[in-house]
Amino acid sequence: MATTLITGGTVVSATGRAAADVLVDGEQIVAVLAPGSQLLGTDLRQGVDTVVDAAGKYVIPGGIDAHTHFELPFGGTEASDTFESGTRAAAWGGTTTVIDFAVQTTGTRIEDGLATWHAKAAGNCAIDYGFHQIMGGVDEFSLQAMDHFEAEGITSFKMFMAYPGVFYSDDGQILKAMQKAAELGLLTMMHAENGPAIDVLAAQLVEQGKTDPYYHGIARAWQMEEEATHRAIMLANLTGAPLYVVHVSAKQAVEQLAWARDKGQNVFGETCPQYLYLSLEDQLGASSEEWGAFEGAKWVCSTPLRSREEGHQDHMWQALRTNDLQMVSTDHCPFCMKGQKELGRGDFRKIPNGIGSLEHRLDLMYQGVVTGELTLERWVELTSTTPARMFGMYGKKGVIQPGADADVVIYDPNGHTTISAATHHMNMDHSAWEGYEIDGHVDTVISRGKVIVDGNRYLGSKGDGRYVKRALSQYLT
Amino acid sequence: MATTLITGGTVVSATGRAAADVLVDGEQIVAVLAPGSQLLGTDLRQGVDTVVDAAGKYVIPGGIDAHTHFELPFGGTEASDTFESGTRAAAWGGTTTVIDFAVQTTGTRIEDGLATWHAKAAGNCAIDYGFHQIMGGVDEFSLQAMDHFEAEGITSFKMFMAYPGVFYSDDGQILKAMQKAAELGLLTMMHAENGPAIDVLAAQLVEQGKTDPYYHGIARAWQMEEEATHRAIMLANLTGAPLYVVHVSAKQAVEQLAWARDKGQNVFGETCPQYLYLSLEDQLGASSEEWGAFEGAKWVCSTPLRSREEGHQDHMWQALRTNDLQMVSTDHCPFCMKGQKELGRGDFRKIPNGIGSLEHRLDLMYQGVVTGELTLERWVELTSTTPARMFGMYGKKGVIQPGADADVVIYDPNGHTTISAATHHMNMDHSAWEGYEIDGHVDTVISRGKVIVDGNRYLGSKGDGRYVKRALSQYLT
Amino acid sequence: MATTLITGGTVVSATGRAAADVLVDGEQIVAVLAPGSQLLGTDLRQGVDTVVDAAGKYVIPGGIDAHTHFELPFGGTEASDTFESGTRAAAWGGTTTVIDFAVQTTGTRIEDGLATWHAKAAGNCAIDYGFHQIMGGVDEFSLQAMDHFEAEGITSFKMFMAYPGVFYSDDGQILKAMQKAAELGLLTMMHAENGPAIDVLAAQLVEQGKTDPYYHGIARAWQMEEEATHRAIMLANLTGAPLYVVHVSAKQAVEQLAWARDKGQNVFGETCPQYLYLSLEDQLGASSEEWGAFEGAKWVCSTPLRSREEGHQDHMWQALRTNDLQMVSTDHCPFCMKGQKELGRGDFRKIPNGIGSLEHRLDLMYQGVVTGELTLERWVELTSTTPARMFGMYGKKGVIQPGADADVVIYDPNGHTTISAATHHMNMDHSAWEGYEIDGHVDTVISRGKVIVDGNRYLGSKGDGRYVKRALSQYLT
Amino acid sequence: MATTLITGGTVVSATGRAAADVLVDGEQIVAVLAPGSQLLGTDLRQGVDTVVDAAGKYVIPGGIDAHTHFELPFGGTEASDTFESGTRAAAWGGTTTVIDFAVQTTGTRIEDGLATWHAKAAGNCAIDYGFHQIMGGVDEFSLQAMDHFEAEGITSFKMFMAYPGVFYSDDGQILKAMQKAAELGLLTMMHAENGPAIDVLAAQLVEQGKTDPYYHGIARAWQMEEEATHRAIMLANLTGAPLYVVHVSAKQAVEQLAWARDKGQNVFGETCPQYLYLSLEDQLGASSEEWGAFEGAKWVCSTPLRSREEGHQDHMWQALRTNDLQMVSTDHCPFCMKGQKELGRGDFRKIPNGIGSLEHRLDLMYQGVVTGELTLERWVELTSTTPARMFGMYGKKGVIQPGADADVVIYDPNGHTTISAATHHMNMDHSAWEGYEIDGHVDTVISRGKVIVDGNRYLGSKGDGRYVKRALSQYLT
Repeated sequence: MATTLITGGTVVSATGRAAADVLVDGEQIVAVLAPGSQLLGTDLRQGVDTVVDAAGKYVIPGGIDAHTHFELPFGGTEASDTFESGTRAAAWGGTTTVIDFAVQTTGTRIEDGLATWHAKAAGNCAIDYGFHQIMGGVDEFSLQAMDHFEAEGITSFKMFMAYPGVFYSDDGQILKAMQKAAELGLLTMMHAENGPAIDVLAAQLVEQGKTDPYYHGIARAWQMEEEATHRAIMLANLTGAPLYVVHVSAKQAVEQLAWARDKGQNVFGETCPQYLYLSLEDQLGASSEEWGAFEGAKWVCSTPLRSREEGHQDHMWQALRTNDLQMVSTDHCPFCMKGQKELGRGDFRKIPNGIGSLEHRLDLMYQGVVTGELTLERWVELTSTTPARMFGMYGKKGVIQPGADADVVIYDPNGHTTISAATHHMNMDHSAWEGYEIDGHVDTVISRGKVIVDGNRYLGSKGDGRYVKRALSQYLT
Repeated sequence: MATTLITGGTVVSATGRAAADVLVDGEQIVAVLAPGSQLLGTDLRQGVDTVVDAAGKYVIPGGIDAHTHFELPFGGTEASDTFESGTRAAAWGGTTTVIDFAVQTTGTRIEDGLATWHAKAAGNCAIDYGFHQIMGGVDEFSLQAMDHFEAEGITSFKMFMAYPGVFYSDDGQILKAMQKAAELGLLTMMHAENGPAIDVLAAQLVEQGKTDPYYHGIARAWQMEEEATHRAIMLANLTGAPLYVVHVSAKQAVEQLAWARDKGQNVFGETCPQYLYLSLEDQLGASSEEWGAFEGAKWVCSTPLRSREEGHQDHMWQALRTNDLQMVSTDHCPFCMKGQKELGRGDFRKIPNGIGSLEHRLDLMYQGVVTGELTLERWVELTSTTPARMFGMYGKKGVIQPGADADVVIYDPNGHTTISAATHHMNMDHSAWEGYEIDGHVDTVISRGKVIVDGNRYLGSKGDGRYVKRALSQYLT
Repeated sequence: MATTLITGGTVVSATGRAAADVLVDGEQIVAVLAPGSQLLGTDLRQGVDTVVDAAGKYVIPGGIDAHTHFELPFGGTEASDTFESGTRAAAWGGTTTVIDFAVQTTGTRIEDGLATWHAKAAGNCAIDYGFHQIMGGVDEFSLQAMDHFEAEGITSFKMFMAYPGVFYSDDGQILKAMQKAAELGLLTMMHAENGPAIDVLAAQLVEQGKTDPYYHGIARAWQMEEEATHRAIMLANLTGAPLYVVHVSAKQAVEQLAWARDKGQNVFGETCPQYLYLSLEDQLGASSEEWGAFEGAKWVCSTPLRSREEGHQDHMWQALRTNDLQMVSTDHCPFCMKGQKELGRGDFRKIPNGIGSLEHRLDLMYQGVVTGELTLERWVELTSTTPARMFGMYGKKGVIQPGADADVVIYDPNGHTTISAATHHMNMDHSAWEGYEIDGHVDTVISRGKVIVDGNRYLGSKGDGRYVKRALSQYLT
Repeated sequence: MATTLITGGTVVSATGRAAADVLVDGEQIVAVLAPGSQLLGTDLRQGVDTVVDAAGKYVIPGGIDAHTHFELPFGGTEASDTFESGTRAAAWGGTTTVIDFAVQTTGTRIEDGLATWHAKAAGNCAIDYGFHQIMGGVDEFSLQAMDHFEAEGITSFKMFMAYPGVFYSDDGQILKAMQKAAELGLLTMMHAENGPAIDVLAAQLVEQGKTDPYYHGIARAWQMEEEATHRAIMLANLTGAPLYVVHVSAKQAVEQLAWARDKGQNVFGETCPQYLYLSLEDQLGASSEEWGAFEGAKWVCSTPLRSREEGHQDHMWQALRTNDLQMVSTDHCPFCMKGQKELGRGDFRKIPNGIGSLEHRLDLMYQGVVTGELTLERWVELTSTTPARMFGMYGKKGVIQPGADADVVIYDPNGHTTISAATHHMNMDHSAWEGYEIDGHVDTVISRGKVIVDGNRYLGSKGDGRYVKRALSQYLT
């Protein structure tokens, strides 16, 4: 097995930074060493196959994006990134592990969904991948299936308080699943929006001729996110189940999370780059020659973008600092404007929901370090260490220490990145982040010991990535 | 310089644990290695001076007690531990760094106080030590002195909202010092009790003949801790100064901290073992043949013990889990019953305030891991990693990584410790913790590469410890 | 028309008390006079038909019980008080107006329900009565029916978040009805319990053989009341509809109400005597020779009795003082043990839900004055003035002033009342309040100028009571 | 004694309104009658001396301004309204009772202060007046003096957390006075601003050359009002004393009051018209030919005007609706620009603090009814009924009922009022409210049965007003 020595860099962890060298042997990190790599009189640089110079750069654990949807059927089409294209784009962006969602829709069997998703992913991934289970319908079969989750390496599952008829579970169903989750130690993830109420609002808007993408955000009012978040918290409180709320965008939802956390409840939340940078006002103002006001469709996602005037974005940054939100995932769910987003022309309800950010997560969050929103350590914690702990991969992932998989990113704070559909690697005909400038750059990406991105060359192959069996959450108190 | 290899243990950090070996060269850690210590074909165990077997044990960064008072003049007597006896006791208990307080009393010069404390400590300490500065009177000289704090390695200073005439600063003085602290990046520590009000209550109780130690806690009502905590928060809010509240004991004070933290303010709090385990009811019930009800004097400290019925202790544990409190220090301030505590017979106001816990902090907190109050990782974070970050020592202290001082404790989860004045090493004629049983044991203590405690032998010497110049806090968001 | 002069009493209002005489002419109060009834030289006592001596007693506006269920079909049986028996019992207890609920169950037409209830009541009532409308299923017909509510004198309607299949509305339905209510100025009343979740819990308990009445309260966990309360608040917030939550029993639900009220939302709550005096522990301990542990069935109501150890009862009293709860109604829904409650032997889900307290509301609340929980003024406000304002009857009801209906109660603070099934007038074979002693007594009850209760004689007749067309709420801010 | 009949109006109380006539005999109301004034066949209009036609107008209890300062020595000058001029202006504005403050400054005797104030007022007042006691220095004499307060009819007293050396009490002093107040049932009023901190800020601003009136508001930062409010609440909590916070202007201070009230503590707050209508931005923008930027001095008061951008004004209105604030007083403390306010040219600290609004309180608050901020009932409650209850005058004042003093205002909702220094009756050379337009008008003012304002004629005399001995607060729960 090949050995690699990363020298001269600053290793950044969730708690601090150190000038240190990192020795990789095969797929794992085997040592973290004082800089200079002199050990008991031996110069390790002589004995290794490769020396990577990280001088002046940050050496960080590979990014973990815990919320992606490749090849997801949605609204009569399918998310445009395959496991192949998506994971390769992730790698370009310094993400070395993704957790995608195996899907059970209402009325189907969980085992079948999981098998389907394994089939989609196997042999196609550029980086390591795991699965959460979407539970689109809690019934006796689903509940039985939960007994096998941990053995399958699937220690978290998502339910939906929205999308009646597709993914929606009612509160009785959620209660049953949470009871079982509490018993088994599984982590319940929740799409927390009051779907039945939102669907009424959306239908009313469409009836009133308010069909532009902007009205998607009006229909999905913050009150209905706040409400569902509170409801999920109380069902979790009743059952003792730990709770993880996905894609939090409303400041009032964060206040609910903070309220529960202050009482000591095991409640967590992630936000996504779109909720930190983009706003409902942006969407209202979006326009292009090609698409007119429908240009805003590129930013249709659920939960929706929120009003900047109401201060949601600032509150999300704050919550990342206060640890009322613990993670930043992307909810990567890409659709092209052509042939996909445009299905919703004339009815925002038919716009496939989703934004593609997988490739840019590390960069976008690093920009928060540049602008003073986050510390460097918090950047690593939010994008890698906590995702690993939250979802039972820490030790192998999320940290640079002996025994860990050699998933390492060398990030250049003196580099620069311009985001554009012209240059990105996701399978999308546009970018939600067109023209964003980042004062940093992903230089080198190592996945289980193999350099897969080196400067601007891609050295990895389809199938490099392996399935990660995850343990129970390591983040509970 | 001598080399040491710690093998076979489980290295525990604030975020997780790893089976790893630790190589020490001279005073520093130079490598953390995969277990087995085979590196590029070499068996490191052959090349080192000493191999320490940590199999089945935890390898943790040496404890940091950020709140001690050695040789502190107080109430007409002086804290009974010298820098020599105190730091040696600390070492026995797995603490390898203390931060004591250099004292300025009202009307004296800060520089003089600091010089005095340097003189007390220099050459006498068993382990490394730093200083916070007590600012007993904010005046133009104190404010000027602050300009030199960072250069002196003193990046935090304490003011008192209690003890008028001795340490007390009024709100105008606090405001001025906080303004300067905000400008300089210094961390303001606060003894948050409303002294003027408490002194009235105490005098009234004594007038009523309520002179037993128990009334000390009645006089120092939780309302007056909560109030002062809120006041300190608002002065910090106004000035932009980060705030660290010492020895928090009232759940309502924690609620104030949580409230401020939820808004994103840089506000922190420590609690102490006494506020987790002991109660006002215990103090009321304390009695001995020798001392009668005055036995409770051993637990007279400020802030005082709180009512268990009101739930303060449970709330402190909870706050340690929710990170509304970030650290556990001891506020070690030992006084003997004979000749010291007994000064307050007949008037609880004259009982020297303080409890000695320095030697037992790691053990007492580990017992919280055993009982399920804390995770193992949180134990390390509360007792070492966060203290290091909070007070600007991280990298050198608080973490096991290359470049760090080789301050390492090997803790045996299968060992056992019985606490007793008969066996402790603090200079006290009693123990506040007499009879406490701990399901774990500090086995080996290494301070800057030197084994100073090995099993039940003390191998260190007076003067092993050096002064630590601290940087600005590394914990601010 | 006959004239009556009430002399020598203390007239108590929501804001204070006055020594004053009250002159009634026909059905209305025509004057409130300085005591002595000398007006411009005339002694009014000479000119009236009847003089009622109220010396040493309180003269208060007749009680208004805004929450009763006469002849309500429920669980295969029917509430045991008819409009005749129920309103007569009310009169005995000093209540001169009730608001009952006309019922639409899922799938039926609102107009039909209302007509049915008018038919039940007309000509049978001892005192005045109004109706709220129960909306057991929001559909296009119900929404259209709302247009006529105000003209019908029905300015408030109730929806249920519990009882799926019978009364339950989902959140989309609630949203639609609230939108319409906001537009029309109607007051939305809510049974706030998460029915779908509770039904799961209840079924699980029964499966486990936990079938005693006590488990009714376990199934209906406070979390599910708190949750539904919050949800109703947020739907109200989104739509701008004022909200009135019925029978609040959980302190956490009150906290939600207080939270919304602090933000200025028009949110209100009532509690009932059972939630002030009785507890889940009482129910667990209930036992009788005749019924054994099933004795507790007499206290099966929804929301359920709450744990005294958790402090709900004290919190309800407090909330009545802080105006976080604005009213005390009874939710009078009587069932006999024989033939009714006993339907649920072996399965608490089949116990008809309800407690009968209509006759005792004024007395039970007056006892709160005696014990210092409430002021005398607050007693009047909670039981008469606010109900009148809340539900659009103020001016006619709820106050002693010229132009008001002469609904007057003379209450004797030196009297005494013992509550017992042996003496009560409700059609129940037991009393939920057996043996309660009240340090006061309803002496005289005047309904629209007619003395219907005089000491221990009943002077009224079936049909004395008339339907009250109510205006829009007069309590909104 | 003369009799007066007020006919045809709408009598408005705190809970509702009624078409009713009011009969006055001598100084008191003796009857409230159904409109038409036909009583048992007699037409009362024939038997009275005077009939006042109130058709189309509101008949309300005379306004009570519970916070005025006539002839107050402050900052080297004296408030410009005497008891004579001030109370006459009050009468013009529909206020029939004022409560002024007898003053003890630090180091003087309370009895002397009270005697002085009695001497100032006696025989000079146009309307009834009471006193609160300012306690400018809590010492053994003051504490003893409190024993006589109730007998003197002084059941409330004010302390200051600001103005060290003049009025300031430290927390130990406040504690002692509150203990005594709790014992005696007295109401503690508090000027809640952290004076020691504010004085530091003010001195710093002046040193920096920031001397304009605007900086007065910068120095008196909201944090220092919020802080002092919380501190006062906790001292009240500890002692059990009810607390009334004067001139609340910061929304965060209101949040503290709401927090304490939600817990059931007897805590109250008043705001003033200036905090509802005027802002710090207004003050910054104030300018005139005569005074330049010093024009803003007319709005220098303490607490200061707050930032509109921060939303304080809207929050004050909201708090008046939610009853988190219970009253609107004026803190009437008038100073002329010439010779008084101008003392602070070049140093805002020397500007006498105060705004004159006494004459306009009813009008300014009625405008809040016009704009939908308040209901008509709430207007009466805030300006008359609650002040009467809060300060122990209800029954005699604050309500239109038999036995009450005939203090009655006839307010014309179709009238109009333009506020101007050219027309006002206060002894001020400017108006803080110049050009304000009010959609209503004070038509007739009756004080203890005597018409003192009739349209635009003043019919009263110096000395009409009598001292009101107040009882203990009637507003406590």
